[in-house]
Amino acid sequence: MENSGACQGLTRPIRCIVKLGGAAITCKNELEKINEENLGTVSSQLRQAMSSGPDSQKILGMDWSKRPGESELCCDVGGFYDQISCDSSNFVVVHGAGSFGHFQASKSGVHKGGLDKSLVKAGFVATRISVTTLNLEIVRALAAAGIPSVGMSPFSCGWLTSERNLESADLSMVVKAIESGFVPVLHGDAVLDSQLVTVTEEGSWSVVKPNYGSTNKPVEITVAAHDTTGGMVTKIAEAAMIAKLGIDVYIVKAATSHSQRALSGEIRRGSIPDDWLGTVIKFAGKPAQH
Amino acid sequence: MENSGACQGLTRPIRCIVKLGGAAITCKNELEKINEENLGTVSSQLRQAMSSGPDSQKILGMDWSKRPGESELCCDVGGFYDQISCDSSNFVVVHGAGSFGHFQASKSGVHKGGLDKSLVKAGFVATRISVTTLNLEIVRALAAAGIPSVGMSPFSCGWLTSERNLESADLSMVVKAIESGFVPVLHGDAVLDSQLVTVTEEGSWSVVKPNYGSTNKPVEITVAAHDTTGGMVTKIAEAAMIAKLGIDVYIVKAATSHSQRALSGEIRRGSIPDDWLGTVIKFAGKPAQH
Repeated sequence: MENSGACQGLTRPIRCIVKLGGAAITCKNELEKINEENLGTVSSQLRQAMSSGPDSQKILGMDWSKRPGESELCCDVGGFYDQISCDSSNFVVVHGAGSFGHFQASKSGVHKGGLDKSLVKAGFVATRISVTTLNLEIVRALAAAGIPSVGMSPFSCGWLTSERNLESADLSMVVKAIESGFVPVLHGDAVLDSQLVTVTEEGSWSVVKPNYGSTNKPVEITVAAHDTTGGMVTKIAEAAMIAKLGIDVYIVKAATSHSQRALSGEIRRGSIPDDWLGTVIKFAGKPAQH
Repeated sequence: MENSGACQGLTRPIRCIVKLGGAAITCKNELEKINEENLGTVSSQLRQAMSSGPDSQKILGMDWSKRPGESELCCDVGGFYDQISCDSSNFVVVHGAGSFGHFQASKSGVHKGGLDKSLVKAGFVATRISVTTLNLEIVRALAAAGIPSVGMSPFSCGWLTSERNLESADLSMVVKAIESGFVPVLHGDAVLDSQLVTVTEEGSWSVVKPNYGSTNKPVEITVAAHDTTGGMVTKIAEAAMIAKLGIDVYIVKAATSHSQRALSGEIRRGSIPDDWLGTVIKFAGKPAQH
């Protein structure tokens, strides 16, 4: 999505917030399994979209940690001395949970609240372990592709909900990270809910989240039993609310030539080409105050 | 360490802040290797110290995620229904980096600052990946032992330094986590520094960190070349500053009968037994305002 306005505290506006769907980066039907191929393609496409340097510049990985079972690590420090400083272009990456987290959340009913129950408390802990495991893997994949990514958990950032609606989201640290040239990587997380004296699962990142209870569903859509984030109905409703702020939303299949073209800015500049597959949500009226 | 005063926002005072030394939970001479045996013992000792229930109560793990290379996960949901709610007793766990993070930090010189340099920026990213990998493993080990642990990165919490001294530490989310019955697990992290337009590595958790430059070292202590956190000199100086606040500090070898006795409260209650090995730092005068 494109941000036409300036975010408070930023000297340059955010160029793009990329939400990676959980189903795109994980194998949704296999518990806690990452779709390595898609993730690699997505990381590479993002790196190209963010990079302002020449395409021929050598990609220098920023993940210098060992992989489980491996004794060696990859760290080409020397290469960085000749490197033109990578401009991260004010990107933010957000990702869903896919086959991480949902199992733990639905098993314990953590999204229904009730932290006084042992099972719900355990489910909260288990859910956070699962989604932060995924976040770390995404951060590592992006860093390996040369993106200066830093993981930021909404729970640790102090985001709170009130009856499942986002009550407060402290963006100050996200802004500071962007200003310092990093790409914050946020994710669907379990966060505390002030009203239910309980917990709720934030399945997606959005400034205003519609209340499930008051949503008028015009069509019946089947949501997988383990999907505690509301499925596509919620996602489309959120996209519409973002568009109302004057921020265009592009929905496109990840790791395809279509996502690459959307990231490159080609779709934004002119009319939508006939051979491009995707959905663009724009607001036709006057943008709401933001 | 024991907190005699009430922390702002807490309805009950913090009972204990346990700092797990990096050397105790990792194999310090082997890159990114966890000392599984010690970590298991430490987790079990902490669980016993925190638990208010009967010792015979079945330990129900809260890590329901798969291990690398394993296809099965362990999730005993049924057991939680009979479980007496685990009182986490207002504990906080903090851990050092050991053989995680230091390599990446020293290789890139990230602790010296200079985020405009490609290498330093990459080093910041690489350091965070390494220390958050360790944090996740500690959280998982504690959760597996039945402790409702939640990882919280100082970077994400918005902690900032100014010329390497802690400038601001937002504890509100740590307090909320404790109030909700969780055990926050903080760690040595790379955080942004407002003055050096750069970065610094927070190697330990402390409210006030002495400025390395102005420290008058009465004795020569050799610090490992890759240790970017100042070695024992800084740690002792910090312990003394904590003691001055009226908070007793116990330094004891992890995963031993001595650490178990310190955690049980036995050492606090009376005079120090002859067969107990450890160091207690108490302030003899009137505690400073806090």
